[in-house]
Amino acid sequence: MLEVTLLGTGGMLPLKNRWLTSCLLSCQGHSILVDCGEGTQIALKNTNCKMKPIDLICITHFHADHISGLPGFLLSMGNEGREEPVTIAGPKGIESIVKSICVIAPNLPFELKFEELSDHTKLKSHQLEVTSFRVEHSVECLGYTFDLRRKGRFNAEKAKALNLPVSTWSVLQREGCICYGNQLYTYEAVSDGMQDGVKVTYCTDSRPVKNIVKYASNSDLFICEGLYYEPDKIRRAKKTGHMLYSEATELAKQSNVKQLWLTHYSPAVTEPEEGLDIAKAVFEHTECGYDGKHIDLLFKNQ
Amino acid sequence: MLEVTLLGTGGMLPLKNRWLTSCLLSCQGHSILVDCGEGTQIALKNTNCKMKPIDLICITHFHADHISGLPGFLLSMGNEGREEPVTIAGPKGIESIVKSICVIAPNLPFELKFEELSDHTKLKSHQLEVTSFRVEHSVECLGYTFDLRRKGRFNAEKAKALNLPVSTWSVLQREGCICYGNQLYTYEAVSDGMQDGVKVTYCTDSRPVKNIVKYASNSDLFICEGLYYEPDKIRRAKKTGHMLYSEATELAKQSNVKQLWLTHYSPAVTEPEEGLDIAKAVFEHTECGYDGKHIDLLFKNQ
Repeated sequence: MLEVTLLGTGGMLPLKNRWLTSCLLSCQGHSILVDCGEGTQIALKNTNCKMKPIDLICITHFHADHISGLPGFLLSMGNEGREEPVTIAGPKGIESIVKSICVIAPNLPFELKFEELSDHTKLKSHQLEVTSFRVEHSVECLGYTFDLRRKGRFNAEKAKALNLPVSTWSVLQREGCICYGNQLYTYEAVSDGMQDGVKVTYCTDSRPVKNIVKYASNSDLFICEGLYYEPDKIRRAKKTGHMLYSEATELAKQSNVKQLWLTHYSPAVTEPEEGLDIAKAVFEHTECGYDGKHIDLLFKNQ
Repeated sequence: MLEVTLLGTGGMLPLKNRWLTSCLLSCQGHSILVDCGEGTQIALKNTNCKMKPIDLICITHFHADHISGLPGFLLSMGNEGREEPVTIAGPKGIESIVKSICVIAPNLPFELKFEELSDHTKLKSHQLEVTSFRVEHSVECLGYTFDLRRKGRFNAEKAKALNLPVSTWSVLQREGCICYGNQLYTYEAVSDGMQDGVKVTYCTDSRPVKNIVKYASNSDLFICEGLYYEPDKIRRAKKTGHMLYSEATELAKQSNVKQLWLTHYSPAVTEPEEGLDIAKAVFEHTECGYDGKHIDLLFKNQ
């Protein structure tokens, strides 16, 4: 199961009643935070989510509304007892930017590691496979896919055909491989191939470029910015490297995703739901994200 | 009149219902912000105060809970149309620290100026005279006094004695000086000397050292940290360079201030008012600060 929680859904400015856009993904006791604007640590406290299990923080880009909360967030993780290393991943320059803003957060009780990402960089965070992809904003900006893979079913016939004794089967299932009779056997050799997993794609801030469709394809959940919904805001969206609801829904349709959550609303959009009808006309399975919106994504046939 | 508003009253961590400690002082259309932790820009939006008229930001020290909101705050000032320079004052190193954390806030539409302060540095911000003074924390930390001076009353007899014609009087009152008959006359020469003004002293984070008494003396309002109220927290307060309510009230008594507002409560202090009786036993005119607490300090006989 992959748990997804929107911590905030606001773009540009933190508001009284809307935290800046960020998202937490949790799976088997480990979490990934995506973006950390001013106030994200409070937004997280408003949910049932925990700070301490966050092993990876993925930053989309270096605009303040996506990263300015990081020093306080890391200090609070330390106060909550985090001691294991935390990895911060983001576009080129991530290490120098984070070190610069964290000059006011010295002596953290855990190590910071850095991963510099570009288009199609993959990294693994426990059960989740993370892939970054380039989007189109006013500065270098990344989208992310999060894949929770599901192993194929164990096939006893295949194990028997390889003359593997029953005593080795549970080890193979648990460890993924075994050395028997001086030969290495992998779990893949005794299973029916991968089953459908769970896939989440996250994209903000960007114009609606083709690369997003490529990476979002067949996602169970596509979280995408919709800065405005009024059609007459298109010029402003183009100028600032953002997109309208209708552009996000078109991407969702082309990507064949199961559902779309809109986020990163302009402070001028006080009632995001007012634009929902327009959005659903293009892609029916669209929902407006809101602070604290949560879903548990399960494997099929689970 | 000097308007004082507590924007936040929390120490260390921003909480769901308590912003980090900061304060706004406003006088004749110009404002000074003291400290700017994570979320201060939202705390300000929760009051009737405005962001744009802030000409001076005084930072007490470089712990994240007092400065981490600065990049977002400055960006929002720009969004609100600020174009005039903003001065940021604080302990030694202020310019390099601010430039470091503001790497995510480039291209501000106004100039940043810096004032490096130490013990007894004075600066002027429109009608207010600001004086920094050294306090005792785990890092270099400053307290501030804010003096709104009041000119002496115009004394016509003195003007007549100097043979200044009536036509020069209003100019002298308005401009503070005049050149007449090839000689410079100042307003002081035709007035009865300074009248009592209004004085506010601000102190957090610190142990209760004598220098605070010296600078807070005879303040109309003394805003001082009280991290804890339970007497058994004294060891922790000493270790971390903070003070208890009872120590703040003792300073207030010794300084002969008119009133004391407590602030910068520990996240563990969920009901600051519960410690108020202990505080008032030492200094009667003690009040618990809270987010949004406001006072208009008037001149005497106004």
